[in-house]
Amino acid sequence: MRKFNFCAGPAALPEPVLRQAQQELLDWRGLGCSVMEISHRSPEFMEVAERAERDLRDLLKIPDNYKVLFLQGGATGQFSAVPWNLFGAGSKKADFIHSGHWAAKAIKEARRYGQVNVVASSEDRNFSYAPSADSWRQSPDAAYLHYTPNETISGVEFDYVPEVDCPLVADMSSTILSHPLPVEKFGVIYAGAQKNIGPSGIAVALVREDLLDRSMENIPRSLSWKVAADADSMDNTPPTFAWYLSGLVFQWLKAQGGVEAMAKQAEQKSALLYRYLDSSDFFSSPVEKGSRSRMNVPFVLADDSLDKQFLAEAKEVGLLNLKGHRSVGGMRASLYNAVPLEAVEALVKFMADFEARRA
Amino acid sequence: MRKFNFCAGPAALPEPVLRQAQQELLDWRGLGCSVMEISHRSPEFMEVAERAERDLRDLLKIPDNYKVLFLQGGATGQFSAVPWNLFGAGSKKADFIHSGHWAAKAIKEARRYGQVNVVASSEDRNFSYAPSADSWRQSPDAAYLHYTPNETISGVEFDYVPEVDCPLVADMSSTILSHPLPVEKFGVIYAGAQKNIGPSGIAVALVREDLLDRSMENIPRSLSWKVAADADSMDNTPPTFAWYLSGLVFQWLKAQGGVEAMAKQAEQKSALLYRYLDSSDFFSSPVEKGSRSRMNVPFVLADDSLDKQFLAEAKEVGLLNLKGHRSVGGMRASLYNAVPLEAVEALVKFMADFEARRA
Repeated sequence: MRKFNFCAGPAALPEPVLRQAQQELLDWRGLGCSVMEISHRSPEFMEVAERAERDLRDLLKIPDNYKVLFLQGGATGQFSAVPWNLFGAGSKKADFIHSGHWAAKAIKEARRYGQVNVVASSEDRNFSYAPSADSWRQSPDAAYLHYTPNETISGVEFDYVPEVDCPLVADMSSTILSHPLPVEKFGVIYAGAQKNIGPSGIAVALVREDLLDRSMENIPRSLSWKVAADADSMDNTPPTFAWYLSGLVFQWLKAQGGVEAMAKQAEQKSALLYRYLDSSDFFSSPVEKGSRSRMNVPFVLADDSLDKQFLAEAKEVGLLNLKGHRSVGGMRASLYNAVPLEAVEALVKFMADFEARRA
Repeated sequence: MRKFNFCAGPAALPEPVLRQAQQELLDWRGLGCSVMEISHRSPEFMEVAERAERDLRDLLKIPDNYKVLFLQGGATGQFSAVPWNLFGAGSKKADFIHSGHWAAKAIKEARRYGQVNVVASSEDRNFSYAPSADSWRQSPDAAYLHYTPNETISGVEFDYVPEVDCPLVADMSSTILSHPLPVEKFGVIYAGAQKNIGPSGIAVALVREDLLDRSMENIPRSLSWKVAADADSMDNTPPTFAWYLSGLVFQWLKAQGGVEAMAKQAEQKSALLYRYLDSSDFFSSPVEKGSRSRMNVPFVLADDSLDKQFLAEAKEVGLLNLKGHRSVGGMRASLYNAVPLEAVEALVKFMADFEARRA
């Protein structure tokens, strides 16, 4: 029996997607083999790949002058790829907004290849908020500005898109496809799939075409957006099954009403949980209002000696993977697209019960 | 209905593996979710990862002083990783044996980072053989010697392991797990999974521990074997479903009698096909005897105007993916571990019929 799964990633996938994959796992489209047992260059798989790109373009209204790349190595691979692809056109300086764990990782890798200016940081209050738009100023000669619109671990989400003169680069791993996106404001958007796109092992990058020619000379072939773009993301054998599953997720999203519907649902789901957290003395959110993530909701018990019991009882009633990230502790409910409203309702009910029994 | 699938990669997987994956796709081990919907750091997935490594170590008798890494980016990613990881300890020279398409790709990428000495090549006879052991001499100061024990496209396989003083590096994408392997003779063995290990999107590297400290200074984090080794291949979210499937393949291999049984079967299967090719005036093998691959058997029709018809009729009787690589044309039957003897028997019977009907 399927349970409610709040995992931060690899996260829950839509059940209809898994059912279809299950049904056709041994014999896909009557071919007599699995979709993962055919050449990525076969007409049958090419159609899967092209449809996935087309559907993603539809969902996010991606302008024609952006390449859609399906890559390996996750967002972490892109922490390396971003400086390698963008530091070759003169400036080896980049502006970064430091908003927490994942921004820090991106900064650390970029620093190995150029000069990083942290133009805003929320470290002063333990990364419990997103720096506001008026709190920072970009460098005059940055090759790009990088930020992390949603910090998966601390549950902090930006409610604005930075306006900058240089190319804006965003790690959207945990928010992509959860709302309409003004893609044209970005130079590069990248995301690991395992939260809102598909299974782990595939990543998506949207790259504005004029940024494909700025790579450093010695860029490893496997990190080059240009190489990937020129080869339609097939310079080497791509992760075909993950690509296929991502495509099924895109189809499911369209059938659900697209990212507009997802945004509405994300608002509903997260509001329900935050409302409860704010009304309780037993649980609380460590994130400042205005910066609270719609995708990842960390919360703490006033008495953390009850953490283990909370997790055990939650599991008992079919609420899975609520443990916070090992680096911060506490709890975390991730509410990605595939997590239905009923899951959050069940969670809030359980939390209220848990609290009441200890009143 | 499952058909006989001779795809060169992504290739056929063992049917029992796919059946198990299918059965537990929505609810794995009674957890209430899929194995691809849980954290890679959960105890449940860690057990999958550890068992996969243990089984692979058992199958190949990997010595304790070798790290087993599960990576992304395929063998092509390793074309970049090899020079980046091995050119940092003084010498930026590497010896390469040039045996065909894949060796050429590895050479091209290594040349970007150091000096490549092609110490042997079979280009003189269109890569139709593996250069013999006495035909070449290594450089005195090479950081490593790289070769491709099996060329997937041209179907050329080395019948010996080079004896060299420097670390021996091998791209074993299409032969790993098809025979017992003297791992201790190698410094590094790497392989994309999509032929003899699992689905595409995961790669395996076996790295002798003393080679983990030779990387160039600016190595991208995502290419570093040291980083991967220190993080048990979880520096970033790994491709969990591909890892799980690879683990199931390892279990299946052990149940079949391990690599010794696979070697025997590979010998049988390929001998059957080569015997027929050599007896026919209608079909022939372009590869010299003594260098013929047990895994990939390219062959040509004397009258190549019949190619299309051959492929169409083969598909008709359930023999899939026999088309040769686009760079060489003709036909190719890949006979990896998951391709049963019956598949080759059916292929030979079909070829004999096809020939007879045109006699």
